[in-house]
Amino acid sequence: MATDTPGGPGPRLTLREIAARLGGEVEGDAGTAVTGVATLDEAGPGQITFLANPRYRPRLAATRAGAVILAPRDRDATAIARIVAANPYAYYARTVALFHPPRPARAGVHPTAVVDPSAEVAASAEVGPHAVVAAGARVGARARIGAGCFVGEGAAVGEDTVLHPRVTVYAGCVVGARGILHAGAVIGADGFGMAPDEGRWIKIPQVGRAVLGDDVEVGANTTIDRGALGDTVVEDGVKIDNQVQVAHNCRIGAHTVIAGCAGIAGSAVIGRHCQVGGGAGIVGHITICDGVTISGMTFVTKSITKPGVYSSGLPMMAHADWLRNAAQMRHLDEIAKRARAAAAPGDPHGTDVD
Amino acid sequence: MATDTPGGPGPRLTLREIAARLGGEVEGDAGTAVTGVATLDEAGPGQITFLANPRYRPRLAATRAGAVILAPRDRDATAIARIVAANPYAYYARTVALFHPPRPARAGVHPTAVVDPSAEVAASAEVGPHAVVAAGARVGARARIGAGCFVGEGAAVGEDTVLHPRVTVYAGCVVGARGILHAGAVIGADGFGMAPDEGRWIKIPQVGRAVLGDDVEVGANTTIDRGALGDTVVEDGVKIDNQVQVAHNCRIGAHTVIAGCAGIAGSAVIGRHCQVGGGAGIVGHITICDGVTISGMTFVTKSITKPGVYSSGLPMMAHADWLRNAAQMRHLDEIAKRARAAAAPGDPHGTDVD
Amino acid sequence: MATDTPGGPGPRLTLREIAARLGGEVEGDAGTAVTGVATLDEAGPGQITFLANPRYRPRLAATRAGAVILAPRDRDATAIARIVAANPYAYYARTVALFHPPRPARAGVHPTAVVDPSAEVAASAEVGPHAVVAAGARVGARARIGAGCFVGEGAAVGEDTVLHPRVTVYAGCVVGARGILHAGAVIGADGFGMAPDEGRWIKIPQVGRAVLGDDVEVGANTTIDRGALGDTVVEDGVKIDNQVQVAHNCRIGAHTVIAGCAGIAGSAVIGRHCQVGGGAGIVGHITICDGVTISGMTFVTKSITKPGVYSSGLPMMAHADWLRNAAQMRHLDEIAKRARAAAAPGDPHGTDVD
Repeated sequence: MATDTPGGPGPRLTLREIAARLGGEVEGDAGTAVTGVATLDEAGPGQITFLANPRYRPRLAATRAGAVILAPRDRDATAIARIVAANPYAYYARTVALFHPPRPARAGVHPTAVVDPSAEVAASAEVGPHAVVAAGARVGARARIGAGCFVGEGAAVGEDTVLHPRVTVYAGCVVGARGILHAGAVIGADGFGMAPDEGRWIKIPQVGRAVLGDDVEVGANTTIDRGALGDTVVEDGVKIDNQVQVAHNCRIGAHTVIAGCAGIAGSAVIGRHCQVGGGAGIVGHITICDGVTISGMTFVTKSITKPGVYSSGLPMMAHADWLRNAAQMRHLDEIAKRARAAAAPGDPHGTDVD
Repeated sequence: MATDTPGGPGPRLTLREIAARLGGEVEGDAGTAVTGVATLDEAGPGQITFLANPRYRPRLAATRAGAVILAPRDRDATAIARIVAANPYAYYARTVALFHPPRPARAGVHPTAVVDPSAEVAASAEVGPHAVVAAGARVGARARIGAGCFVGEGAAVGEDTVLHPRVTVYAGCVVGARGILHAGAVIGADGFGMAPDEGRWIKIPQVGRAVLGDDVEVGANTTIDRGALGDTVVEDGVKIDNQVQVAHNCRIGAHTVIAGCAGIAGSAVIGRHCQVGGGAGIVGHITICDGVTISGMTFVTKSITKPGVYSSGLPMMAHADWLRNAAQMRHLDEIAKRARAAAAPGDPHGTDVD
Repeated sequence: MATDTPGGPGPRLTLREIAARLGGEVEGDAGTAVTGVATLDEAGPGQITFLANPRYRPRLAATRAGAVILAPRDRDATAIARIVAANPYAYYARTVALFHPPRPARAGVHPTAVVDPSAEVAASAEVGPHAVVAAGARVGARARIGAGCFVGEGAAVGEDTVLHPRVTVYAGCVVGARGILHAGAVIGADGFGMAPDEGRWIKIPQVGRAVLGDDVEVGANTTIDRGALGDTVVEDGVKIDNQVQVAHNCRIGAHTVIAGCAGIAGSAVIGRHCQVGGGAGIVGHITICDGVTISGMTFVTKSITKPGVYSSGLPMMAHADWLRNAAQMRHLDEIAKRARAAAAPGDPHGTDVD
């Protein structure tokens, strides 16, 4: 337990013990003991499962699980021992964490790590093999700096933050408390700023910082550039998936989530509680208000001022159909003009709304 | 030969010697010797070239190559010494490998590497400078763990597998035999799983594994996440290009290839012998059957049950044309209604097929 | 000054001193002293700002800056002390560099670095902690090899080039002079070349190189593959953003810029002075002439022979509108036929231009 290796059985806990720690109401035998969590389909008698999405109710009848977490509306949907929770999905998340708590920091600096004498590393922090903590950098209490990480000059990593192996935090950048940065993430590389000058590009030194708030998660190989003059800011509670690019001087509002492979261009401002779908592209210098959802592979080309869902990715079709239809995209304006010209008087579609 | 440095002349081999090792039938002077492989356009007298695509037949007449690999149908298309092979492209691949064999492992652990005493590293395996092999990890015979790699607690790397520099394999994950993982690849970072709870996101610990079969190639900076509860699985013979994202609980069928920058969302199941084009996006929780080809930049939004080619990426046009045509996308439904309303009786297109 | 930490006040310089070093004409009090650069909105009395885009002229009236860089056309637009420069944006770039010069190399090899005895590392070069410089590699004068970098066998890094932490340069590859490679960049991983053979994929050894010219910048986690037989070439002055994929045997023309998350497939040839937008995808084996701009998220499916701007990414709309309109894409060919059939005689749109 509490090693780096997840999975496998956890401690043996009764429903009574789980509810004592996480709340909720036990129905059925509160002494039922389980050692882990699994899906409705895969759980066995020694495991607890969960029903969060009503769509999966039919699977509840067939589950072999020893216990189940469910919503008040499903309280009587099974005879299995159960925990009734207002938010079964969140309860599930907390239950998994009960069985698989994150490994705490192993206090100390590995002998192969290189820590500058002027760096301030908390005594309770862990600095892994071959990690580098440069001059003036700070590593907070109980933080874990993984193998091969680089924390640049004057950079700061907050309390209880975990840097998985091979994370780079450039000089002067800030990562808040309780963050999780996955392998290969790069915080604070130079923004992509150049001035054209007689057919060549002159580099604009990027002298702002990348500043991440508390409780931020950053996926593997994701990149968040430093600002040109001001800072790039990722507010508290933001969760970013793998391979995402956040350009210089962006601001990502608190509790926003960004799925894999999305790209956000320079100086874009994204509101709080937004959701950006995988592969979406957001152009620079625009503002997206709070509470916006961007569908996967959508191209956001202008500011959004109204909460809601926005899309542009075209769904696939069989290639032969696509060839025929996509070719007409080159004529869409002409087609529109013809269709409007042809619309008969009195036709309900006969008013040009263009 | 057999160093890390590719290119340059290889050993001197006659066509007879090549055919003795790789099969095929020699036509012309079997004593013709070559020291490497080059394209039809670039090969010189000391090199062997190949004709795999009939489209390049005109270049065969002009080639300066000393020898050529070609298909039975092209047997008499040149007087140059040649090897006739059923699959000239595969034969070409094997011929390059004859001249440039992969460097074998240099058995032993570099003095700067950090290998936990409980790790099992085969005596014939190579562990490079600054690599870390954590507690309980296993490294198979003749495997190469490159400089700065991280093999996590309890993870396994199979026989003859090559990890190029700076690959991360998280705790508990499995890489099969004869794999090739390129620099910066991350296997087993946490899947992107969160439960919303009162305006915040609660992390769902990801306790499944990422499990790669045998003969899998993973490109530079590609990421394959671990599963939430069950495993993410990449079956035997799968080839994945650079900068690809494979999310938690995906299953990629055997001998499927995935080109650069593609993104595959959680719990997607991709069949065997599929080809996913560059930049394609595949939404989560869908199933793609065996033998499907997804064109580049296609957005796969639902399951595919029939082998074939599927597309959605729109081809570019001059910007001014695009502005005019793309603007009509906002009115396409209205245009369709007008066009249908206007269609004359008896018009072959007059039946609404919507 | 000249540390790794950017930002903060720089040296105190008068406009006279700045103009003496960078040219331009001072208007107003040439003795005005500043210690840094900031935007029109954020600059204070001790800072110099700039007006490059006429759109921001209204902000000039409100700025609190102590001095301003502007174009001859704006010479009289303010009473603030100012420097008049033909290209104020380039002048701004150079002014930032005056205040924040790049840190020079700290000559020498860190004791934890592993440098092969046969490698040639210039005495003035810096090799950081845990870096690896393999057999026969060369590192030029004043180059900086960051922490955890890997410079492979026989590879070359030019004079004054900076490799930020954790860059990988594979064996035999070449990086020119004055380059900047950001963290996680991978130069020279194998191209994605396989030959199908009886339902399996045979690896085609990639024995070409990746060759980068002088003054090339490569963003964080960007990947540039080595060539299959010949080389992948990135010419002088090319600037590449983060998370870009350049496949084997591409050629990128001099002074071209490529924004984040773009993907360029194998053997594509891109001209000089091109601009590739973020998230754009370029298929393989095509040629783009000099002076082409590709909009963000555009899918380039064929060669471009005429300079200009090209686009294909569809702009987003509200999801409900999108659902309705995008569904008609499946019928676009039919709609086109109906619209053309219905067009009245004499209708200016009545001639089929398909």
